[in-house]
Amino acid sequence: MSIETEKKKTYRSILKWGDPNHIEEPNKRLVGYVKKYMAVTDEDIKTPHLPALDEVKLDTPSALSAADLESLKNIVGKDNVDISDYERLRHSVGYSYYDVIALRKKAKIPLVDAVVCPRHEADVVGIIKFCDEKKIPLIPFGGRSSVVRGLDPIKGGISLDLTKHMNKVIKVNETNKSATVQPGMFGPAYEDYLNNYKTENSSTGYSCGHFPQSFEYSTVGGWVVTKGAGSLSTGYGKIEDMVLGLKFVTPKGIIEIKDYPRTAAGPDLRHIVAGSEGTLGVLTEVTLKVWKFRPDNRSYFSFLFKNWEGAVAALREIMQGEFGLPHMLRISDPEESGIGLMVEGITGGPIDKVLSLLGYKDGQRCILMGSTEGDKDTGCLIKKKVKAIAKKHGSLYLGASAVRGWYRHRYNDPYLRENLMDMKVMTDTVETACSWENLPKVWAGVRQVVKARKPSVCMVHASHSYENGSMLYFIFISKIKPGDEIDDYLNYHSSILNAIIDNGGSPTHHHGTGRLMAPWFEDFSGKTAMGLLRAIKAELDPNNIMNPGGTLALDFKGDKKKSFRI
Amino acid sequence: MSIETEKKKTYRSILKWGDPNHIEEPNKRLVGYVKKYMAVTDEDIKTPHLPALDEVKLDTPSALSAADLESLKNIVGKDNVDISDYERLRHSVGYSYYDVIALRKKAKIPLVDAVVCPRHEADVVGIIKFCDEKKIPLIPFGGRSSVVRGLDPIKGGISLDLTKHMNKVIKVNETNKSATVQPGMFGPAYEDYLNNYKTENSSTGYSCGHFPQSFEYSTVGGWVVTKGAGSLSTGYGKIEDMVLGLKFVTPKGIIEIKDYPRTAAGPDLRHIVAGSEGTLGVLTEVTLKVWKFRPDNRSYFSFLFKNWEGAVAALREIMQGEFGLPHMLRISDPEESGIGLMVEGITGGPIDKVLSLLGYKDGQRCILMGSTEGDKDTGCLIKKKVKAIAKKHGSLYLGASAVRGWYRHRYNDPYLRENLMDMKVMTDTVETACSWENLPKVWAGVRQVVKARKPSVCMVHASHSYENGSMLYFIFISKIKPGDEIDDYLNYHSSILNAIIDNGGSPTHHHGTGRLMAPWFEDFSGKTAMGLLRAIKAELDPNNIMNPGGTLALDFKGDKKKSFRI
Repeated sequence: MSIETEKKKTYRSILKWGDPNHIEEPNKRLVGYVKKYMAVTDEDIKTPHLPALDEVKLDTPSALSAADLESLKNIVGKDNVDISDYERLRHSVGYSYYDVIALRKKAKIPLVDAVVCPRHEADVVGIIKFCDEKKIPLIPFGGRSSVVRGLDPIKGGISLDLTKHMNKVIKVNETNKSATVQPGMFGPAYEDYLNNYKTENSSTGYSCGHFPQSFEYSTVGGWVVTKGAGSLSTGYGKIEDMVLGLKFVTPKGIIEIKDYPRTAAGPDLRHIVAGSEGTLGVLTEVTLKVWKFRPDNRSYFSFLFKNWEGAVAALREIMQGEFGLPHMLRISDPEESGIGLMVEGITGGPIDKVLSLLGYKDGQRCILMGSTEGDKDTGCLIKKKVKAIAKKHGSLYLGASAVRGWYRHRYNDPYLRENLMDMKVMTDTVETACSWENLPKVWAGVRQVVKARKPSVCMVHASHSYENGSMLYFIFISKIKPGDEIDDYLNYHSSILNAIIDNGGSPTHHHGTGRLMAPWFEDFSGKTAMGLLRAIKAELDPNNIMNPGGTLALDFKGDKKKSFRI
Repeated sequence: MSIETEKKKTYRSILKWGDPNHIEEPNKRLVGYVKKYMAVTDEDIKTPHLPALDEVKLDTPSALSAADLESLKNIVGKDNVDISDYERLRHSVGYSYYDVIALRKKAKIPLVDAVVCPRHEADVVGIIKFCDEKKIPLIPFGGRSSVVRGLDPIKGGISLDLTKHMNKVIKVNETNKSATVQPGMFGPAYEDYLNNYKTENSSTGYSCGHFPQSFEYSTVGGWVVTKGAGSLSTGYGKIEDMVLGLKFVTPKGIIEIKDYPRTAAGPDLRHIVAGSEGTLGVLTEVTLKVWKFRPDNRSYFSFLFKNWEGAVAALREIMQGEFGLPHMLRISDPEESGIGLMVEGITGGPIDKVLSLLGYKDGQRCILMGSTEGDKDTGCLIKKKVKAIAKKHGSLYLGASAVRGWYRHRYNDPYLRENLMDMKVMTDTVETACSWENLPKVWAGVRQVVKARKPSVCMVHASHSYENGSMLYFIFISKIKPGDEIDDYLNYHSSILNAIIDNGGSPTHHHGTGRLMAPWFEDFSGKTAMGLLRAIKAELDPNNIMNPGGTLALDFKGDKKKSFRI
């Protein structure tokens, strides 16, 4: 069913997630389920929809003059300026559903005029100065894993690709238990470096503690400026909790924040850089907390609850228990749990019968999965406490193996989107954070809107939880409307976002804001806060060269509450 | 030796710390020590230095016109505007050493022109609007416990006293485990309210988790805008870690941040409000995390180390152990430990002899104290882990009772300052946060500068620690130079601050910046960051009415690196 990624420079090679050689064959039962519920025919499967196998060829040449290109080459060296069609397109899109469908349709989209790869901070300073003088937009570029249209070069300009050269660990400081790293380093390279940093202080090396689903194809700098969360964030925190110090080059100059453990010396500007999403400047260095790498101490657990309410109650009690926190902790709602058990071949079999007799019925039952890391005794105690809470809420212990499997394959789900879209199946995700008080209505309200479109699947899980609430992650699956792919998606997406906000959820917990959330961002922030963000922007980037065109609604002029196309 | 606080409205009643009826008689051994080392004579003790027992009488009338006063009364009601000499002076000073010595000398200091007590948020909005139109400075006022000259009304204006009316808990939300509270509520009232909020969810009530030394005479709003830390912050976090949501009235409008557990929706403006120290607006409501109140689960421990290096190494290993954290954790350096054991009557006695024989010698040995709270099993495990680390570093277990005593008297030390100053003894504190890497040189460098003045005492402890470093707290004691009290103090203070910064410490961990640190703040922040802070100020408070005159160096024009007088 899957289309091999061509070695040629095709549109498909740009829209395809992750490792070009990794084709994730969907589980047979999942294909059966999708075929049945989405009315996918064998014919659909045989003839992939908009496969985008053409070689990239643009009809818009770079808008930069020969003199400008020469100036850029003088700053970073001639090998570090690229205006080829393929690289320009590849640097003009992320992995949002919007980006992907636009690529499949070869729709006319805004393009960067050149890709520039700085070698070091001095190059970044030089490029920013040049762009500021010439008023050329500049878009910092990392792993391009944005699913919120963080990279759309609405006004053209230069993509500043930090991954080619600025991709190294500068220093591991074992005394301070921290690492200073360049922004363009990808997750696996960073983690490998730390794992292999073995000394008498930590004979098994260190770990970065940040493992988003995009881990393999996202960068340290991208994590920070978009405020990402890893799958173990319940224990390790979100990336902004790990930032100890940084260097940030803006058109106005460099902000350097040293790695003091804490200070009461005025507002904490680390929290202006985190979440700035390329609109204020370029991160050139960041000092992050690290942890001891002790994979042998990892411990897994899972439970089955009779219903969503019980699972939520247990999750909340764990998060509010004041006994320490598991590192991973997630509950799946009945639909996600149901599909999970179906895919594993449990549903309809003998185990399912026993579970049903015990009161754990398909369509109601919910799975909780978790893990602990770090100190072994502490992990044991936390697991024991979690078990007691789960038991109190009427759950059944399911052991460790399911979680171990999830852990092993945790980066693979995004690979499935291509296969589904080939079958005319739309699949996308939105996420939010809400208080425990609002969680039931956000869950129900968003599900209602997703399910109002028929046929549709809405799988929900709560992970990344806190004392006062939790993230909710919605995976929605429906049919593509051939011919009207883009507007149809945008309308659906808008209705889902509205349901999140109207029921008391935040626009995003960890995907970031980008241009996708811009139509909601101003109302969410409020007038005074929005004025403040624009004043911050005007101070650091007076000519609006940094990632302009809608991100964080700083210069967004479109309709409110409505996902937009360009 | 102590002077009874007069019932009359004296200067002394303003400079005296805390409960007017609480006179803290210094321990006899401490008095003996101070007499000996500071060459304090019986004559000095008999004739208190600058006792400031006169009734307050100002020779500067309020600069507000009758019409302005009338307008103010129309906004908040006539009972909520006060221009009496006593209240104007009381609202024009905090408790910095500078404030206190200025009061003792009845020096001419800047004064507020009126004290205004808003009844609710609408009053705050009205007063800000009035002041903004009339360009009258407005200084938010809470517990006035600032030790960094946060309240000095350099340009006169209005003190906005939030403690009279805006001092209530608005809501306890047990589902979200949070409390929403008004800014003018004092620590004990807030904690009592929570302790007594007993329900089936928590039969023993809740706790705020924030217990700074100023707890009894500081307010919730003050904690937040100055980024305070409580004595249990190692476990509960600093106050800025507890802020979930807030409402903040600025001249430009209201910033409201709802209590979403987390969001990736742009920069986190909670961290602009925290640390703003009255310069951007007035906090009118804050939602904070709360914890279950379980005093029975509290557990204490203490150890004696052979030297400072061993104590620091143990502290660092505990903070980096990944097994959870004690709630209180502090190590005292040899001088502080020595004075502590002397005051307890240990030094020179039979126990001292045994300790010396075991290698724990006076002048080198260091005390570690700590406590755990929350879940009992977790506390037990943490204590066990701490014991193992302390043992590894050659310490002797001292049991719980010393810590219990410290805990009981933890708010009392500030009461001693009056007695010491009466004896012509200067005593003040500075604090910093530094990485583990810099800690030894900050400790040694600051001590060197303090001790260069003879005679002097320099007691240091490290508490409020983190994975990558710790706060260091310096208590310095020396002789007052009669006649030259102010400049002599400012020069000494400047040299100490310079030693902190030059050796790699931050200007403050939890006291805040105020006007005291202004001469260091711009260089500490850097040019671009300082420009950004000024742009934030200009956006929210374009007429510079909010706490103007040096705080955070926003409009500071004095010499750098030099504590200033007005």
